[in-house]
Amino acid sequence: LTGPVTNPPESRRPTRYREIYDRIRASITDGTLAPGDRLPSARALATELKVARGTVDTAYALLSGEGFLLTRGRSSTVVSPQIPASSMLRRPAEAPADRPAAEPEDLTYMFAAPLPLTPGLPAFDLFPRTLWSQLIGRHARRSAVAELSYPDPLGEPTLREAVAAYLAVARGIRCGSDQIIITGGYLSALGLICRTMLRPDDAAWVENPGYPFTAHAVRTVGARTVPVRVDAEGLDVERGIAVAPDALLAVVAPSSQFPLGVALSLRRRMALLDWARRAGSWIVEDDYAGEFRYEGAPLPALKSLDRDDRVLYVGTFSKTLFPGLRLGYLIVPRPQLARFKAQVRRLDGGRPALEQAAVADFLGSGRYARHIKRMRNAYRSRRAALMAAFAEAFGARFPLSPMAGGLHLLATTDEDDADLEARAIAAGLRPLALSRMGFEPSRPRGLLLGFANLPEAQAAATVRRLAVALSQP
Amino acid sequence: LTGPVTNPPESRRPTRYREIYDRIRASITDGTLAPGDRLPSARALATELKVARGTVDTAYALLSGEGFLLTRGRSSTVVSPQIPASSMLRRPAEAPADRPAAEPEDLTYMFAAPLPLTPGLPAFDLFPRTLWSQLIGRHARRSAVAELSYPDPLGEPTLREAVAAYLAVARGIRCGSDQIIITGGYLSALGLICRTMLRPDDAAWVENPGYPFTAHAVRTVGARTVPVRVDAEGLDVERGIAVAPDALLAVVAPSSQFPLGVALSLRRRMALLDWARRAGSWIVEDDYAGEFRYEGAPLPALKSLDRDDRVLYVGTFSKTLFPGLRLGYLIVPRPQLARFKAQVRRLDGGRPALEQAAVADFLGSGRYARHIKRMRNAYRSRRAALMAAFAEAFGARFPLSPMAGGLHLLATTDEDDADLEARAIAAGLRPLALSRMGFEPSRPRGLLLGFANLPEAQAAATVRRLAVALSQP
Repeated sequence: LTGPVTNPPESRRPTRYREIYDRIRASITDGTLAPGDRLPSARALATELKVARGTVDTAYALLSGEGFLLTRGRSSTVVSPQIPASSMLRRPAEAPADRPAAEPEDLTYMFAAPLPLTPGLPAFDLFPRTLWSQLIGRHARRSAVAELSYPDPLGEPTLREAVAAYLAVARGIRCGSDQIIITGGYLSALGLICRTMLRPDDAAWVENPGYPFTAHAVRTVGARTVPVRVDAEGLDVERGIAVAPDALLAVVAPSSQFPLGVALSLRRRMALLDWARRAGSWIVEDDYAGEFRYEGAPLPALKSLDRDDRVLYVGTFSKTLFPGLRLGYLIVPRPQLARFKAQVRRLDGGRPALEQAAVADFLGSGRYARHIKRMRNAYRSRRAALMAAFAEAFGARFPLSPMAGGLHLLATTDEDDADLEARAIAAGLRPLALSRMGFEPSRPRGLLLGFANLPEAQAAATVRRLAVALSQP
Repeated sequence: LTGPVTNPPESRRPTRYREIYDRIRASITDGTLAPGDRLPSARALATELKVARGTVDTAYALLSGEGFLLTRGRSSTVVSPQIPASSMLRRPAEAPADRPAAEPEDLTYMFAAPLPLTPGLPAFDLFPRTLWSQLIGRHARRSAVAELSYPDPLGEPTLREAVAAYLAVARGIRCGSDQIIITGGYLSALGLICRTMLRPDDAAWVENPGYPFTAHAVRTVGARTVPVRVDAEGLDVERGIAVAPDALLAVVAPSSQFPLGVALSLRRRMALLDWARRAGSWIVEDDYAGEFRYEGAPLPALKSLDRDDRVLYVGTFSKTLFPGLRLGYLIVPRPQLARFKAQVRRLDGGRPALEQAAVADFLGSGRYARHIKRMRNAYRSRRAALMAAFAEAFGARFPLSPMAGGLHLLATTDEDDADLEARAIAAGLRPLALSRMGFEPSRPRGLLLGFANLPEAQAAATVRRLAVALSQP
């Protein structure tokens, strides 16, 4: 680590802090530096490398922001042993069975009219209606033949290019636009993946607790789900390997696990990628909330570490724009590209051209990145307002789990959360029972509380309504 | 038939011609009147029933327009032995094998930019851009929360209701709006049907020749296709029963078969419905061009005869509006409704709200029916112009098959149609080789020529370009 920094030709020479950043990052990802290992102080390293102290500080800050390093106090920097611990799981899911708690028939409320506290919704009141209707209107008026005709089932080329460019900047992902397939959102992408890759009796790891539709999509093609518990470091990769080492697929939300909100630790990320490489398996990265992290910098995508091309990356515009758009994207590893293209051409006529053209404009203009930044700030405030109101109203009865990202809070409980949910719904509120997300027989209990669509000014009154509803017998 | 017409209570009394129409239609569909049976002359029947001659004439005209009766000369009316014969099949498909000629990889041109003569495209130049952008713009500006939020995966209620009302009037179909699922077009509906109903090794009849993606969709879920030949009366139902009596599904385009353009005869319609009832099988009716019939009145949908609820009806807005919309609809028989709803909720997040809302307005305003009427007239003229230009240029070399509906002409040939197609494409034209649509080993040959997107004024010049291209060695 502290050897001389070689000098590349002047024209291609990266900045000094970037060289240091790259070398430390490489040392961590190749195992030279182990989790918990202590790094030299910035001052000492700067002296050794003969660079300014601020250069090392910048590299360390970058690595800390991405979760590789943990800075303890003023001078102690270690390789992150894990993503900051969470104590949310009062009832860790033990001995899981292959059966999610909620059937799709039980989940129709997810398609019902949104109510206050509905999890997973972006801020409808802050959506830039004027800009959006200008972008849509321009294409609708023109109704160019290319937009009236059969769309490319892989997606409009302009949008695929705009997405590739966006992901490089925002999520640290390098891929060609030819690897991108435009989908109708997460479910649409996952359905495509399952239909293309899974054969009956193939196994797929799914998170426990997790998004129920993930398990349903896997089962719909006749494959087996292997629920793998999620703890404070995210998906328990070792447990997955112990239970189903030859699973074909692992579906994981590394940035902000749904519903628990934990981030997959760097150690686990490396272990997961290593397993996939050795087993010839594939990882589905559900990055539904990768843009929304409120403490520290956004974590880079798992896909950005994917040197062996084992990760199918799934992104969605449902959270960054709005769910009614039904647009998302999938990055397909090159070895799988031909199969996916053939599958898309067989079973799907593609997505409407109109929204694709408008979203391509949105991304290309740079307004999309500004919109996300604005929403991230708004959500940080809304989150703080709801946390404060909730803590004041419920105190120790429903402790809030620490979550750095996502669009909901999680209040834990030992009470019957389905009953709590029902009482809230009767009061016109829609928090979601955590037990719906677990696999039988063990299910952690809690309430998911959506904050992104709840203005700060309404937080206190909404929580008071909830408190009244939950205080009734 | 000639018994006294009973008098229902005055308030509910249908018009006299409707009573006569209903009784004859019922006699045909229940087998009392057999194909080829002669009916009394209108004058004689009027005398017997003690109604005006014009009343019987109206009923006969209605039944003739729908294909139930055939009027020969001035006074002879018989139950239609078949839908008017077509002589198009120079090489009827014998001994078919379960393998369509074209793989999806060969069909990417269907998603390429449209060229003159591309089959299956509506008139882009006549599309009402102003009206459409007004409808779209209104919803985009408002961006109501219901349209920003997760859509109902079954479809927006307003659109489902508008479709049910439209189908009752335009296609003679009675169904509840709760039976309608909004899809992304034909492929999307067929994929949903296959995933919901077919198990591996189930068999499905597909038309030979037929739309290649139909066979691919069936095979994608592991089921077997049973190609059944199409002759002048449409799908050879007896052959299908002989080869695969226990098929679970029969996929058929009764109004205007693709690619041959024949209508399924009434006799065959009844036989198909009878088979489905007895075998416990299901019929998929692909009504992609039901609205576009240029000789006589539009045929009612097969679904309108479906008393036992065995028909899954698939309609699309790709031909009546435009394919880039990616919207269509599926009517699900009530006994299957729960399975379909669960399947839709598992694997698809539904279609974007924006286009659904705009199309619902389009239908509800009555402008949709007027648009279709206008297009039918335009297509009749465009068809006539292309037929005339083609016959003049090619005469006996490529005889045109008589086709009463659809969006393309079919020129038959003994020449290598793939070679003809390639030479046309080199000249910037895109007729489609019929042999792509057949199953190995036998494939009829011909060229499909799209006329709906080709203005009359361009017909002669386009055909001249084609003649030059096809005259070269």
